[in-house]
Amino acid sequence: MNEPRKLLPEPTLRRLPWYLAYLDMLRHDGVLNVSSTALAKALSIDSAQIAKDLSFLDVKGKTRIGYNVDELRANIYEQLGFGRLHNAVIVGVGNLGAALLHDGGLAAYGLAIKAGFDIDPQVVNSEICGVPIYPINQMHDAIRRYDATIGILTVPSAAAQEIADELAASGLKAIWNFTPTRVKVAEGIVLTNTSIYAHLALIYNRLENNTTP
Amino acid sequence: MNEPRKLLPEPTLRRLPWYLAYLDMLRHDGVLNVSSTALAKALSIDSAQIAKDLSFLDVKGKTRIGYNVDELRANIYEQLGFGRLHNAVIVGVGNLGAALLHDGGLAAYGLAIKAGFDIDPQVVNSEICGVPIYPINQMHDAIRRYDATIGILTVPSAAAQEIADELAASGLKAIWNFTPTRVKVAEGIVLTNTSIYAHLALIYNRLENNTTP
Repeated sequence: MNEPRKLLPEPTLRRLPWYLAYLDMLRHDGVLNVSSTALAKALSIDSAQIAKDLSFLDVKGKTRIGYNVDELRANIYEQLGFGRLHNAVIVGVGNLGAALLHDGGLAAYGLAIKAGFDIDPQVVNSEICGVPIYPINQMHDAIRRYDATIGILTVPSAAAQEIADELAASGLKAIWNFTPTRVKVAEGIVLTNTSIYAHLALIYNRLENNTTP
Repeated sequence: MNEPRKLLPEPTLRRLPWYLAYLDMLRHDGVLNVSSTALAKALSIDSAQIAKDLSFLDVKGKTRIGYNVDELRANIYEQLGFGRLHNAVIVGVGNLGAALLHDGGLAAYGLAIKAGFDIDPQVVNSEICGVPIYPINQMHDAIRRYDATIGILTVPSAAAQEIADELAASGLKAIWNFTPTRVKVAEGIVLTNTSIYAHLALIYNRLENNTTP
């Protein structure tokens, strides 16, 4: 269980949380084993895909019994990295940034937000949900002090690139970009975009053109 | 400007918010016109792609001048649906749900969250950031009363499918799923997943396997 985690393909990483949620439900219902056919049906993923996704894990199903629910669940949880805390800082604690600080649930998924940064004197030197908020110019020091590897970017779009550059210069290894700006980072820095505004645009566009086939 | 919005391909809908953020920045800097070459460079999108994305809009660039920044910005904003409020309700105001209610910034992107629902007696009949929270069993009535079309799903994963079914039965046209559960909906209901846990898994996995090429 403590083997180094493998490099998983992005589509597999997108699907594995679905498995995890479903296995949690089975566990809650006291189900001990699950076949890959049952997984395929419950998740609407074809069985070849299931076999491929599970091939990245260290579990083997048994003929006519299937997978042990607890074991499969623990293995996926571990592979996804949710079982270990990753120190993060958040830059920009306006609307969305403060919102993420209110989401105490992220810790169950391995994210420990240790500090926030902002330029607003109203919030600087205060705490939001127990997380200390520092002025932006203390970013470098604080990142080192908290041994943070992930920077969450929730500044106004116009500041996004500049702050991303500073985060990278502070030694952060990954940037989780929630701004609508297309941020560029040097090779070697992990960049993940969560484009909630793009998702909203998608919802609106599909709603307005909804001519059910 | 008030023409019916067109059905846009998903990749274009994902890219247009980048254009919007960049045009906002240009506007802020007092830039009046922008060429598609400059857009291509700033956004790292190749020019053929830019031409295709902009072909969905009602704007024409001028030779040697390019696009009028204001006009292009207004056109994209309108096409993305951000200029008109869409009534929404949110189900589950625990961690993430309450967090989204704290994000007052969503209104600038056309989202008006009118009501929340929960089963927790601690929050039911209270308000979060001015939004009234009702018990789940008042969902049908409230959705009709607020003329809501979008349901935001932030319940615990085990309840996600059941609540999605109820939202669809209440007449909602779109479900924005923030849970890690793979929710299924009937044809004709717009379903968009924002998988922040999958994004976290992606960050962790890339961090741990970061062998810069």
